[in-house]
Amino acid sequence: MHNKDNISAARADFYRRIDTQDLFPLWEQLHNLVPLEPTGGCVPAHWSYKALRPSLMEAGELITAEEAIRRVLVLENPAIRGQAAITNTLYAGLQLIMPGEIAPSHRHSQSALRFVVEGRGAYTAVDGERATMAPGDFIITPSWTWHDHGNPVEAEGGEPVVWLDGLDIPMVRFFGATFAENYPQAEQPLTRPEGNSFARFGNNMLPLRHQPKGLTSPIFSYPYARTREALETLLRQDEVDAWDGVKLRYVNPVTGGWPMPTIATFMQLLPKGFRGQTYRSTDASVFSVVEGKGSVQVGEQRFEFEAKDIFVVPTWAPVSFQADEDCVLFSYSDRPVQEALGILRESRENH
Amino acid sequence: MHNKDNISAARADFYRRIDTQDLFPLWEQLHNLVPLEPTGGCVPAHWSYKALRPSLMEAGELITAEEAIRRVLVLENPAIRGQAAITNTLYAGLQLIMPGEIAPSHRHSQSALRFVVEGRGAYTAVDGERATMAPGDFIITPSWTWHDHGNPVEAEGGEPVVWLDGLDIPMVRFFGATFAENYPQAEQPLTRPEGNSFARFGNNMLPLRHQPKGLTSPIFSYPYARTREALETLLRQDEVDAWDGVKLRYVNPVTGGWPMPTIATFMQLLPKGFRGQTYRSTDASVFSVVEGKGSVQVGEQRFEFEAKDIFVVPTWAPVSFQADEDCVLFSYSDRPVQEALGILRESRENH
Amino acid sequence: MHNKDNISAARADFYRRIDTQDLFPLWEQLHNLVPLEPTGGCVPAHWSYKALRPSLMEAGELITAEEAIRRVLVLENPAIRGQAAITNTLYAGLQLIMPGEIAPSHRHSQSALRFVVEGRGAYTAVDGERATMAPGDFIITPSWTWHDHGNPVEAEGGEPVVWLDGLDIPMVRFFGATFAENYPQAEQPLTRPEGNSFARFGNNMLPLRHQPKGLTSPIFSYPYARTREALETLLRQDEVDAWDGVKLRYVNPVTGGWPMPTIATFMQLLPKGFRGQTYRSTDASVFSVVEGKGSVQVGEQRFEFEAKDIFVVPTWAPVSFQADEDCVLFSYSDRPVQEALGILRESRENH
Amino acid sequence: MHNKDNISAARADFYRRIDTQDLFPLWEQLHNLVPLEPTGGCVPAHWSYKALRPSLMEAGELITAEEAIRRVLVLENPAIRGQAAITNTLYAGLQLIMPGEIAPSHRHSQSALRFVVEGRGAYTAVDGERATMAPGDFIITPSWTWHDHGNPVEAEGGEPVVWLDGLDIPMVRFFGATFAENYPQAEQPLTRPEGNSFARFGNNMLPLRHQPKGLTSPIFSYPYARTREALETLLRQDEVDAWDGVKLRYVNPVTGGWPMPTIATFMQLLPKGFRGQTYRSTDASVFSVVEGKGSVQVGEQRFEFEAKDIFVVPTWAPVSFQADEDCVLFSYSDRPVQEALGILRESRENH
Repeated sequence: MHNKDNISAARADFYRRIDTQDLFPLWEQLHNLVPLEPTGGCVPAHWSYKALRPSLMEAGELITAEEAIRRVLVLENPAIRGQAAITNTLYAGLQLIMPGEIAPSHRHSQSALRFVVEGRGAYTAVDGERATMAPGDFIITPSWTWHDHGNPVEAEGGEPVVWLDGLDIPMVRFFGATFAENYPQAEQPLTRPEGNSFARFGNNMLPLRHQPKGLTSPIFSYPYARTREALETLLRQDEVDAWDGVKLRYVNPVTGGWPMPTIATFMQLLPKGFRGQTYRSTDASVFSVVEGKGSVQVGEQRFEFEAKDIFVVPTWAPVSFQADEDCVLFSYSDRPVQEALGILRESRENH
Repeated sequence: MHNKDNISAARADFYRRIDTQDLFPLWEQLHNLVPLEPTGGCVPAHWSYKALRPSLMEAGELITAEEAIRRVLVLENPAIRGQAAITNTLYAGLQLIMPGEIAPSHRHSQSALRFVVEGRGAYTAVDGERATMAPGDFIITPSWTWHDHGNPVEAEGGEPVVWLDGLDIPMVRFFGATFAENYPQAEQPLTRPEGNSFARFGNNMLPLRHQPKGLTSPIFSYPYARTREALETLLRQDEVDAWDGVKLRYVNPVTGGWPMPTIATFMQLLPKGFRGQTYRSTDASVFSVVEGKGSVQVGEQRFEFEAKDIFVVPTWAPVSFQADEDCVLFSYSDRPVQEALGILRESRENH
Repeated sequence: MHNKDNISAARADFYRRIDTQDLFPLWEQLHNLVPLEPTGGCVPAHWSYKALRPSLMEAGELITAEEAIRRVLVLENPAIRGQAAITNTLYAGLQLIMPGEIAPSHRHSQSALRFVVEGRGAYTAVDGERATMAPGDFIITPSWTWHDHGNPVEAEGGEPVVWLDGLDIPMVRFFGATFAENYPQAEQPLTRPEGNSFARFGNNMLPLRHQPKGLTSPIFSYPYARTREALETLLRQDEVDAWDGVKLRYVNPVTGGWPMPTIATFMQLLPKGFRGQTYRSTDASVFSVVEGKGSVQVGEQRFEFEAKDIFVVPTWAPVSFQADEDCVLFSYSDRPVQEALGILRESRENH
Repeated sequence: MHNKDNISAARADFYRRIDTQDLFPLWEQLHNLVPLEPTGGCVPAHWSYKALRPSLMEAGELITAEEAIRRVLVLENPAIRGQAAITNTLYAGLQLIMPGEIAPSHRHSQSALRFVVEGRGAYTAVDGERATMAPGDFIITPSWTWHDHGNPVEAEGGEPVVWLDGLDIPMVRFFGATFAENYPQAEQPLTRPEGNSFARFGNNMLPLRHQPKGLTSPIFSYPYARTREALETLLRQDEVDAWDGVKLRYVNPVTGGWPMPTIATFMQLLPKGFRGQTYRSTDASVFSVVEGKGSVQVGEQRFEFEAKDIFVVPTWAPVSFQADEDCVLFSYSDRPVQEALGILRESRENH
């Protein structure tokens, strides 16, 4: 072997030489590659809906839904700008559709959720069936299914409709399995009346001979009314969890699993006066406020939030909630994937 | 070897000798033991509710619910009387509970369903939670859970309540796994308010950290209102199946499987004028008519039925329905077990 | 209501009247129908192979395999003679095939296991592939697959081959799903060379694009050599279980579940001097002794056993083993079904 | 709305303004974010073992295993240098351990495979049990299990041992769930003799009361001897697949699924003279040549390979094989994740 000076020089020389073979010495990077705790990535962030709504409406002036295909303002995590990512693995955007507009039909290997923020009367059409959208509704457009959106002008006028798009764009890009296709017409033909999927799958019953296809829930619209009522009942009846308040997860009724294979979705109610304890989880989460006012502590940062605001909690960041009014929060994360990979870790503090 | 006469005698002698060793020659019975098609067992049967209701009410005079523990008239298949079996594997009984009565708490390894036939105001308590019963509701008391029933007299009086009990008594007896235990008091203590289970599991959402226990649905009451509305929607929207009409199966929302591991449950709507085609299935089925008038052809027999009637279709019997009015039929069978065993077989005829 | 004398008479009269409606009063039978503990059914029994082998060989004189279709002496539980059942739910028989004979091809909805007791050189053909049979091998003929057996006379002569047949005949009969069909020829055509299934599925690897069909293991022969070596290794390395000795269960490598949906199979090694503790289980078990001498206490009865003997342990009977030599025991039961039904119960005593 | 010049300027201005709100307009990037086909990422690459072995041995001079913790040369995909990634999602490195050395014990949330390239006599210890390593063996160190390696000097000397490490480092980093911990001593204590896991799980049998923990196979060493024999048998017996030759996937015998939740592993045999057809798959694959000489066409590039070489096939690249001798190829990919996410896509060409 070499002496101490020699060895440094010899190693440096060695590193240079193997670099040309597309090799590098693990031992110089081991601690970075296999760190003791999660590091880096996205940061906490908060978007005030009041602050960004004017921009969204301005977008409505600057481009049509048809020209844009999807008229969306993408919410980018400040620490990783340029990647269309609100967390390392997930995408978020606010989509606007004006009365009389259509967002044309296409399909892609990415899965999408739509969470309605404001306005009534728009629809999402999936796989030949329309779902009319109302605030608080959670709607799915599964991987590789034709989907389009519209906001028909009815007799009474019509209003701008805005929803949060949550997609797995960064994740599918990471795995290299991105495919897309445009439908030859702006709108796909409708093959089933509205409400058909919910009647078949939404009432704790299934069609006798139903064979599940794919990994996504056959219910593609989960109406807010039922969700809100369930939360309200449990708030009155059950003990409120010290970390989560009253929190439910959406399920695929054919399997009891998640509605989509790549994205978990949740709805929780924090009663007025709730002062939550701190928890951490490896699945970074995007929150959309449905009702109420409150605040969230994420690591060193505190965000005040009100209805329609959006905020993001990074991987493994300590997080706790406070509710000044009854608050309802929708959220989504990559939890199904972390569970499938066996790497989900959670921690709850008592203080 | 022997000649033909000898051989018969030699064999007969041999059979006698080995009989003392608890042995017998398979070849003498092979065709009976491994028949080409299902044989024997239960027969088609029909119980007119109008005809048996007086007996049920008379039972209400002859014994109290408390003395009876369960005041039930058991419906026995005429071909296999004495076994408390309406099919080879399943039990059916009509239970009566009068205003002011209690059927005391116990538990057993047998699973039970309750399908409400007439009357309002009674409850089933399962695992610390009550479910108030209304006609058409499907209620579960899972294996080895405490359960009791009551019919409290409210201000406005009260009425006799009757439901169909469906249990796996013959099946659990066949497998030799029968256990039971009486609760020390007549009523188990209530630990959750009514509606709690449905709020937690009944709306296509689940509590965040729910861990399923056992093989039975955590929803133990499936209200008729939702079931009826789903059937009605599908009748308007979908093509009616030529054999089944509009038929849904109840599911365990945690798994998408059957609500109970031993008994499948179904609800179907046959529109007025329906003339169903013939099918056969190896799972014998018990039907309880919820609404309407019609008839069913089972093998060589035809039964006219009306609301509240009960009838049974044996294993592999050809069956077809006719509906004189819109008919709603609840039914149950041992299908989950036949699927788990890999022996379910079905056949549909086109004529 | 009635007074005490009246009431008995009134009830008796009532029971007579409702009997004509195929009804009976549950309250008179509740304790029998829902007993506190398992009752009745089969009893412990033991067959000495030495004692029954002469009968088996005599059967070889009295009928050919071809005439018999299956030359089998059925072992009937003494308490339930006439049902071709060694336990309530399972069948056992000893099949003999002489050199040069063929047992012709058929299929049925019943599943079968073959456990080789004595002799070499016979084969079982399943689904186009033969498996040559050696003592201790466990072979499956799945539900509704063509199968036939043969004992070809090779140059060196040939010997009688005997195996234990274990089938789910009573179970499939109980569920009413019995179907059978004879193959037009005595032997089905061979479509794959011997060893093919094992090469594809038996080495902790699977063919890349394999899609499982049915609920049965695609390995249909589990050779004794590997089983014996695994048991021997674990005997040397692991602590011996005080109830079971060293006990392994066979698995379907495509699922990790049981090789067949209706019958569990096990192999266990009891080291010389083993004095097992007492346990009970609701799945009655049939044992076939592969090696060694010992005894088993089943309830009030003790059986001495030696290699090739067969004995049966009923539902919920207390059982414990003693081994005078290293003993290897094969066994089978209806455990997969009891698990699927959620009714399996086990108990272990410490004394 | 604006005229054409105005609109461009207005939009550009708008984009600048919303950029300060961490927003950007989806419509300017939609085609890049949701491309019609997979784009970018890693490129085909090939490492000649002959060419890199001297560097590996030189590393053995420059640093000890103990100082290095893991003496590994990492193989980096030329298109994405600096990320310790051979594909977008997976890591590959060649690890050297010299006679007498120990690589100290640690654990991490990343899963690892070891595929032995040359040398005998080293071991991997996992969870208290050692596996001695021979060329062609596939060994697992599951997520969050203690593991260490050693190369004990026996009487006869000892030799350098080299294996390929395959880990999910980029993937776990992407999901932000990276945790690690060092064991207080260099070697974990041994609690089970060598061969114990294989005896319990490796022979199509499982311990009676085994409860699976985690998502990883309880067999942590899959010996080459069995794999090679299975491939050889199938080569003689089965038709050779026109794309894959004879290809098997490793399984977790407790589930029939993949041995690890994040990494699929395969072994395939290409008979001498094989001229494979072209296929594509979205799971990029890393190949390690075990035996033989041949070549692979990956997109526009052709690599000649021989035993011990490593090469990588990117996502969706057209690939086909030619074998100059009987070739055995080990490979690994992220297929289990793509399947869980529902995004795996494959295509096979016929030419």
